[in-house]
Amino acid sequence: MMLLDGARLAGVELTSVCGGKGNCGQCRIQVLSGDVSPPTPAEKLILTEMELINGERLACCARVRGSLKINVPKASLLTNSRLQLGSNLRAISAQPVIRAHQVEVAPPALTDRRSDVERIVSGLAYGSFRAEPAVVRHLSSMARTCEWRLSVYTRDSTIVGIAPPKSPPLGLAVDLGTTKIAASLLNLETGEELAVAGALNPQIGYGEDVISRLNYVQRHGDGARKLAEMVGETLDKLLAHLLQQVGSERHQVADGCLVGNSAMLHLLLQLPTIQLASAPFVAASNAPMNVKAADLGLDTSPGAEIHILPCIGGFVGADHVAMIIATDMDEVDQVTVGIDIGTNTEIALAKPGSGHLSSASCASGPAFEGAHIGDGMRAASGAIEAVRLHESAVQLTTIDGVPPVGLCGSGIVDTIAELRRWRLVNDRGRFQKGNERLRQGRLGPELLLVPAVESGSGRDVVITQKDVNEIQLAKGAIRAGLDVLMKATETSLDEIEEVIIAGAFGSFLNIESALDIGLLPCFPNAVYRQVGNAAAVGAKWALISRAERERARQAAAKAKYIELTSYPNFSRLFALGMLFPADDQLRIVRP
Amino acid sequence: MMLLDGARLAGVELTSVCGGKGNCGQCRIQVLSGDVSPPTPAEKLILTEMELINGERLACCARVRGSLKINVPKASLLTNSRLQLGSNLRAISAQPVIRAHQVEVAPPALTDRRSDVERIVSGLAYGSFRAEPAVVRHLSSMARTCEWRLSVYTRDSTIVGIAPPKSPPLGLAVDLGTTKIAASLLNLETGEELAVAGALNPQIGYGEDVISRLNYVQRHGDGARKLAEMVGETLDKLLAHLLQQVGSERHQVADGCLVGNSAMLHLLLQLPTIQLASAPFVAASNAPMNVKAADLGLDTSPGAEIHILPCIGGFVGADHVAMIIATDMDEVDQVTVGIDIGTNTEIALAKPGSGHLSSASCASGPAFEGAHIGDGMRAASGAIEAVRLHESAVQLTTIDGVPPVGLCGSGIVDTIAELRRWRLVNDRGRFQKGNERLRQGRLGPELLLVPAVESGSGRDVVITQKDVNEIQLAKGAIRAGLDVLMKATETSLDEIEEVIIAGAFGSFLNIESALDIGLLPCFPNAVYRQVGNAAAVGAKWALISRAERERARQAAAKAKYIELTSYPNFSRLFALGMLFPADDQLRIVRP
Repeated sequence: MMLLDGARLAGVELTSVCGGKGNCGQCRIQVLSGDVSPPTPAEKLILTEMELINGERLACCARVRGSLKINVPKASLLTNSRLQLGSNLRAISAQPVIRAHQVEVAPPALTDRRSDVERIVSGLAYGSFRAEPAVVRHLSSMARTCEWRLSVYTRDSTIVGIAPPKSPPLGLAVDLGTTKIAASLLNLETGEELAVAGALNPQIGYGEDVISRLNYVQRHGDGARKLAEMVGETLDKLLAHLLQQVGSERHQVADGCLVGNSAMLHLLLQLPTIQLASAPFVAASNAPMNVKAADLGLDTSPGAEIHILPCIGGFVGADHVAMIIATDMDEVDQVTVGIDIGTNTEIALAKPGSGHLSSASCASGPAFEGAHIGDGMRAASGAIEAVRLHESAVQLTTIDGVPPVGLCGSGIVDTIAELRRWRLVNDRGRFQKGNERLRQGRLGPELLLVPAVESGSGRDVVITQKDVNEIQLAKGAIRAGLDVLMKATETSLDEIEEVIIAGAFGSFLNIESALDIGLLPCFPNAVYRQVGNAAAVGAKWALISRAERERARQAAAKAKYIELTSYPNFSRLFALGMLFPADDQLRIVRP
Repeated sequence: MMLLDGARLAGVELTSVCGGKGNCGQCRIQVLSGDVSPPTPAEKLILTEMELINGERLACCARVRGSLKINVPKASLLTNSRLQLGSNLRAISAQPVIRAHQVEVAPPALTDRRSDVERIVSGLAYGSFRAEPAVVRHLSSMARTCEWRLSVYTRDSTIVGIAPPKSPPLGLAVDLGTTKIAASLLNLETGEELAVAGALNPQIGYGEDVISRLNYVQRHGDGARKLAEMVGETLDKLLAHLLQQVGSERHQVADGCLVGNSAMLHLLLQLPTIQLASAPFVAASNAPMNVKAADLGLDTSPGAEIHILPCIGGFVGADHVAMIIATDMDEVDQVTVGIDIGTNTEIALAKPGSGHLSSASCASGPAFEGAHIGDGMRAASGAIEAVRLHESAVQLTTIDGVPPVGLCGSGIVDTIAELRRWRLVNDRGRFQKGNERLRQGRLGPELLLVPAVESGSGRDVVITQKDVNEIQLAKGAIRAGLDVLMKATETSLDEIEEVIIAGAFGSFLNIESALDIGLLPCFPNAVYRQVGNAAAVGAKWALISRAERERARQAAAKAKYIELTSYPNFSRLFALGMLFPADDQLRIVRP
């Protein structure tokens, strides 16, 4: 057994971006005592000789050979991750699809031989109800256990579940990201959020970006089922974790709502992907769907369904629609741009009056989530989230104020912005030659942010030429997307009145730094609003409100999908987008 | 491998009432050459020494040890069985739940990137339609194979399947009996029956009657799933056979309708059975249900559902409701009794004006289907179906007019009636002692009907004391049920104006013989109508007509369930029902 699996069995979830392939270096641990297999070639590439001598290993490469004592750095812990809940959005009132009824009926007797379903329905206040076999299976024993005093959950005229008396119905809201999965448990009657939990999308092991995963499914006959099942398993584990936090039971979970981009939804529902992965890139279905929770591998109330919000087109999916409703972009009264930065970055542009709501999707990759960055890490304890360079010092802020172990997205953007402001990097992204603040690292020139002695990991924290180039690629994709969207809708920079930045990364982003590295263009008349994980908020709204589901359906039907890659000059716009703003355009000017 | 399995692999389906346990003797074959395992103790009980020397074996007990040449007597062949299709009932017009649309749409292009579902829906004449994931999976490839010219099957606003252009939608109607399964394939648009097929219920190996099977499920944790899956597999094989007969494809099967008694439906749907198997004997659900065909193990159009007709109560199930609608017993204008004789016999009594429709279920057992009768067999080629004793001869009629090999239900009733008329058996069911027409067999006195030299099997065909007693038990159950039903509804024999005899056995039954053995009482003012498998007809009606489904629902809601076993004096009525009519009540009086 690998140490990664052993840790999981012991209840310690380690970060693993590459899915255990020894590529990402995120599952780094230190073996203090005990016997493990010798370092693999993959580990020798990622770990220095000194680190190996020090007992540091990648948990996915080290095989357990007996009892071990290990030290797990905070940066390697998955459960420690900071979730952004988008609290700076308005609240809505619950108008749930599920109704809970308190029922008390007489037990069967020789003189009263009604069926179990008929008996329970007689205790409901009105109307006729049906129950499918899976619900009936659950209902007969639950009714007897509770001596015919029950909470009965119904959806329209269907009984979806049965629970002990006075059990509130719960709902699961999920934002299924390419990299991360965020899940919330809500009380469906009050709309209150009871618990939150997050996990990495386990499909990462089969490709970090959506295209790699779609290719995997094309090449492997069993791939579609496999990728769907592994997400289902993770969702079910998250649900177990959420329920444990609040001490509730699985049979109380009577409804769900899930959002994700088109590819994630196609993979989750095992929809055909050949036509999605090749021109003209059409979805099998963009419509909203209700799927049985059980069919996704979730152990819930037996009749519970998961409502999947609609998609718009191409790779612009339900997560984007959820962001649109959570930020009211379908009802704006000013020209608004909404950007949800993630492994795929979706951008919407809304123009009131014209009725325009257009959306595009950019393959920005996971660099802003800390992946592909040498000392990158997720936004967890010890991550550097803000950076200022001074004449002879580096000023850092870390999450939880603990010694720094790596850079999360906002820290990377801050660092590169400072590199530009101090002219340590030119507008093409090249490190200045011969500057005394830079040193020569294993991969070329690099900036030392934290020496090993001061870091929380005992290793230097640096930013390298390669890191800068990764960020350029990511921002190039986003800028090209934004440019195409503005051209397609004939919108100029000065028309934009509001810029909404969504996503966990976006909510901690320093806007000035984002402007100074050109991740965002300068909108002269815009107000910026950082709203956090708006997609997750939209999923929660649609979970607790029938009206929001309908609003999402209408927003998706109204939005126009703009395909970027077939747009003339897209490659040129991409290349231009990779450049940093010229020296004279930097907002914070340093010597 | 057992010979029974080998024969199946070779495409030869042998009868096996006991499910391969060596009890029923129905899978008798003759080994002409080749090596098989030696006879088992079970075989030595059932086969005589002479038969064993002759190479006769039970296919379920003989293990194949190499290449074999065997002779399969017609009586052992399953596929040869006579199905009764109830053609003497009125016809109805099709009003199907499924609609077929002929659709032709433009393929996706860079300038037209609608999703596959949206594209196909645009080709439908009206309204908005949804498609669940299983349907979408099928739809994308089928649409491309057919170059976007398609038959689209819809149920209300749901797309249930896609087929090549001009493919008529088909439906599967099933009568799931405790012993036999009858299946039909119908054209849903015309209502035409295209093919019929039958099989034994494979659950027979886990109990011949419903109580044994319910007990099996209670005792075995995995029992419910196992019994459900084996029926699902058999249904799917029957469907394959039906489709093969007419050269149609599985994706054309867009709807289904299934009937069966309450226990069969509980087992099929894996509903809880504890409360059904013990007092006060209540069903988990009696309501009509739509279940996914795929969930029952059927490979059909991906969105096809099987409509399960409602049950009435206790063991009075959907097959009885189907019989009620097929015989119009819910709309009678005279006092009518309807009897469906099977392993469970259901009886309905309808009184116009009073609005009464009452039903009961009798555990009559499978004797009338030839089981538990020494030389009993199913109604297949070579079965004796009618018998007349003459002074010094026996006059027989066999199915297909071939040499006799055994007795089917109607032949058994005829034989016992003749035994009574010739006073060879007294009113308590005892063979007369010392009569020269009787001989002493292995199990006591017996009547030789066919000597070995004249039979199709090379063995004597006899009827024994034990056979007579088996029939007495079966008829005792039926008579007690009828008596209780009449008492409960305060109906006298002379009030009954019509007696409907349903079921395959009932349609070949000689009514005079049935009266002479007291299987039916003498209704002085009644007309008898033998309608064949009315339950299967009701299933077909409900398959092709939305109105008939609603009518079935109303009939089930209206009918009153009478529980027999808790009725005062039930045991006494049972014992009385076992008696044969006294000599002076016989209608055909013989010396």
